[in-house]
Amino acid sequence: MSLPPMNLPQRVKLVDVGPRDGLQNEKQVVPTAIKVELIERLAAAGVPAVEATSFVSPKWVPQMADNAAVMGAIRKQPGVAYPVLTPNLQGFDAAVEAGAQEVAIFGAASESFSQKNINCSIAESLKRFEPVVAAASALDIPVRGYVSCVVGCPYEGAIAPEAAARVARTLFEMGCYEVSLGDTIGVGTPLAVARMIEACAAHVPVEKLAGHYHDTYGMAVANILASLQLGMSVFDASVAGLGGCPYAKGASGNVASEDVVYLLHGLGIETGIDLDKLVDAGAFISAALGRESGSKVARAILAKRS
Amino acid sequence: MSLPPMNLPQRVKLVDVGPRDGLQNEKQVVPTAIKVELIERLAAAGVPAVEATSFVSPKWVPQMADNAAVMGAIRKQPGVAYPVLTPNLQGFDAAVEAGAQEVAIFGAASESFSQKNINCSIAESLKRFEPVVAAASALDIPVRGYVSCVVGCPYEGAIAPEAAARVARTLFEMGCYEVSLGDTIGVGTPLAVARMIEACAAHVPVEKLAGHYHDTYGMAVANILASLQLGMSVFDASVAGLGGCPYAKGASGNVASEDVVYLLHGLGIETGIDLDKLVDAGAFISAALGRESGSKVARAILAKRS
Repeated sequence: MSLPPMNLPQRVKLVDVGPRDGLQNEKQVVPTAIKVELIERLAAAGVPAVEATSFVSPKWVPQMADNAAVMGAIRKQPGVAYPVLTPNLQGFDAAVEAGAQEVAIFGAASESFSQKNINCSIAESLKRFEPVVAAASALDIPVRGYVSCVVGCPYEGAIAPEAAARVARTLFEMGCYEVSLGDTIGVGTPLAVARMIEACAAHVPVEKLAGHYHDTYGMAVANILASLQLGMSVFDASVAGLGGCPYAKGASGNVASEDVVYLLHGLGIETGIDLDKLVDAGAFISAALGRESGSKVARAILAKRS
Repeated sequence: MSLPPMNLPQRVKLVDVGPRDGLQNEKQVVPTAIKVELIERLAAAGVPAVEATSFVSPKWVPQMADNAAVMGAIRKQPGVAYPVLTPNLQGFDAAVEAGAQEVAIFGAASESFSQKNINCSIAESLKRFEPVVAAASALDIPVRGYVSCVVGCPYEGAIAPEAAARVARTLFEMGCYEVSLGDTIGVGTPLAVARMIEACAAHVPVEKLAGHYHDTYGMAVANILASLQLGMSVFDASVAGLGGCPYAKGASGNVASEDVVYLLHGLGIETGIDLDKLVDAGAFISAALGRESGSKVARAILAKRS
């Protein structure tokens, strides 16, 4: 018998996607000042990367219509990245103009999802990102890649590991410095996630892969454990579990950052994050939204404090 | 690189402790007929062991005052165990009279918890169970042992793995056929849980150990994964996550059975349980209590159904 988490990484980078992926999926449109304070609180808690906003058309995502105002207002901390989503060259130009120093592009591992979500095939969607990556490269702006539906799709069901690996490979070869693998509907269990990572790691070094797991079925923390055991060391999470699941009303979305940090620190893995300050940031945005935190760690810590 | 969950058990026994450990920690006293229907629904869903009630003084646990009525009313399924908690010989006699065919006894791994909870030392508490085990042995009634606070205590903080192992060993050597290791306050992470299991498995064969993890900090499913990787194959859980955390108001208690079954089936492990029927049983008791299910899997499946 031996401890299973043997070859865990010593340090993990947490990317908090709450201000973008989280708030974008909340019904309420959050005032710019609240978004800015949230982003600044996350950075002050030691989060090394905070996904700040999205430069998409406000017609599609009204919650992010204040993207330039957010980017203009945040007092950036040295050493902290503030990536923004850029779906096309127009969005990229607007992002750069607003001061973005890192951008992100995205593809899906499911054809049906790609068609229903952005009305084109996976191949076409990736093709469209080539000019964005070229423009970013010319300006020395790092590009992060996202793959959605890496283990399951709301329309197709289970997704083959190779389908996720193909998109991850394309994004990496296109120039993304890191590829984030998203279990968008949170159906994955550790075995499916491990197989998916193995398939991706055949083409992209595991240290360039990130795990982006939703907690819809309560599996995200276990999936992160399995991913750590495979050598993954970057994880996306959302403070207070911001953002529900658009495919199952009332169900959970992004795994809560507080829960991930609690896991990592418990495993003796460094994050550079002050959990108490992170809990405060989550309490701040939960209060602003008038709802309970989606983080069990936050609820337990807040209950103990009171 | 290799899949971490390599030596997982092929089959796991789930013990649903919802009707006892769960309902005992709910504020409302649930009518006997509802308890009976819950127990019968769990057995019908394929749960092989359902902790039915507790034969403690109704002065201390008014929620379980109808213990004999519950035991008398349930239509027992062949092959299903219905263990009941028996704190002393008086409780044991009453349990046998009510038709109990399996009983459970309990000790704590924390001295402070033992003193505050049952007003005696760990050693004294275990001594008191000796006549119960002797009486059960004379009647060929199997006895299950519980150890609480195996990794953390609300009064002492972290608990040494050896402290949990000493109590597990004593219960096993006393005659318990299985010892359930309880993270009563849900603070454990996979590393602490793995170290605790390793210490216990030095004295009790791992196939005689069960994991009983609370989800207060959202770690229970990951802790079960780590335990499976160490060869553990029995887990306690509570349908709909019944029973909150008495040490942190508003925080979660027992891990939800639905979430555990979803994990296990996703790992290709047999349980004999029909997840849809289990979700129905959880929806039944959640409706009776007038609250949302504490299971993320149940919420996601119910959202998809509607």
